[in-house]
Amino acid sequence: MPRVTEEYLAGRRAEILAASARRFAADGFHATSMAGIISESGLSAGAVYRYFRSKEELISAVAEIALSKAKEVFDGLLVDGASPSPAEAVSAMVRGVVARAADDTITKTDLTRLAVQVWGEALSNPEVHQRVGDVYRSLRGHCAEVARRWQAAGHLPPDVLPEQVGTAMLGLVQGFVLQRLLLEETSADAYLAGATALLPGSD
Amino acid sequence: MPRVTEEYLAGRRAEILAASARRFAADGFHATSMAGIISESGLSAGAVYRYFRSKEELISAVAEIALSKAKEVFDGLLVDGASPSPAEAVSAMVRGVVARAADDTITKTDLTRLAVQVWGEALSNPEVHQRVGDVYRSLRGHCAEVARRWQAAGHLPPDVLPEQVGTAMLGLVQGFVLQRLLLEETSADAYLAGATALLPGSD
Repeated sequence: MPRVTEEYLAGRRAEILAASARRFAADGFHATSMAGIISESGLSAGAVYRYFRSKEELISAVAEIALSKAKEVFDGLLVDGASPSPAEAVSAMVRGVVARAADDTITKTDLTRLAVQVWGEALSNPEVHQRVGDVYRSLRGHCAEVARRWQAAGHLPPDVLPEQVGTAMLGLVQGFVLQRLLLEETSADAYLAGATALLPGSD
Repeated sequence: MPRVTEEYLAGRRAEILAASARRFAADGFHATSMAGIISESGLSAGAVYRYFRSKEELISAVAEIALSKAKEVFDGLLVDGASPSPAEAVSAMVRGVVARAADDTITKTDLTRLAVQVWGEALSNPEVHQRVGDVYRSLRGHCAEVARRWQAAGHLPPDVLPEQVGTAMLGLVQGFVLQRLLLEETSADAYLAGATALLPGSD
């Protein structure tokens, strides 16, 4: 029996994620079955189930990719005790959506299209609801940290709760994700010009 | 043959909308069939098809309800040449979502749950995509009018495009709609406190 390398396993896993992302994007999360994903992947059922036992596990894997991309954005923003403005953080997130999520190198797909479908699925599937909620709570926490530092630097009144500011920052990014897909004329530049005019502390 | 009153027709139409909204909310837009809606309504197929020939027509009818609610909000904001701040308009929209859309008196359902499902459907259904796009272009136009007046009153730099500000305002509201459903702890008060801290021109 040949020795299976970690690289091989990671490549196989990425193939399955790419196949499932293609099916979700074409037919929607709800209408896609594990059988459809297996067929799209060109692998055996056993090979696919070795990595993912359900659609929900696939969603978790894709969510992890999206979160790790977001973490890179925030690591860059918050390096060496920096205190970027909320407007700068929203700008970095919106540009991260376009540069990283909209053309993911692992799944070869637009993760934001998948996200919008998963939002709908979360309303009738408690397991998906929980996983999506965890992702957004984590992103909101990163946003709140930006607001906390901005407040510590004296740019927000002391009675403002950073968590609440983080909620609104995340909302601006979610609104961009949605409008970019539903209203084709929405560019990151136009959206950020509008957001920047609304938010103080921009360049 | 009895004379059919307008009131009777409107009541019948609302009954069908309520039945379809219940099915969409329970099973998702994609998985709901016209047959399921007919069964839920307790009416004959002929009676239902007299009002709505497809799921897409039902979506249009629900979108009209949502738009007319939004129009009430903006009519109130912009009455007598008023120039409310973008923060005030976002606040009115967010409160309108909670007070009107989340407990619609015609369909007896939470229209925002339906909206989130329709977003996903719009990505694979061109007709739904077009109708949803029209709704958001209209809402964005209302938001842009707020920004235009706010700019005319000297509160926004002259080189800012009101349409772009309107886009970001709408994004903030869409983010609230989503977080309210996916992260239960998101209240309108908390969200608006965060948004208000970010946006100048609030009370």
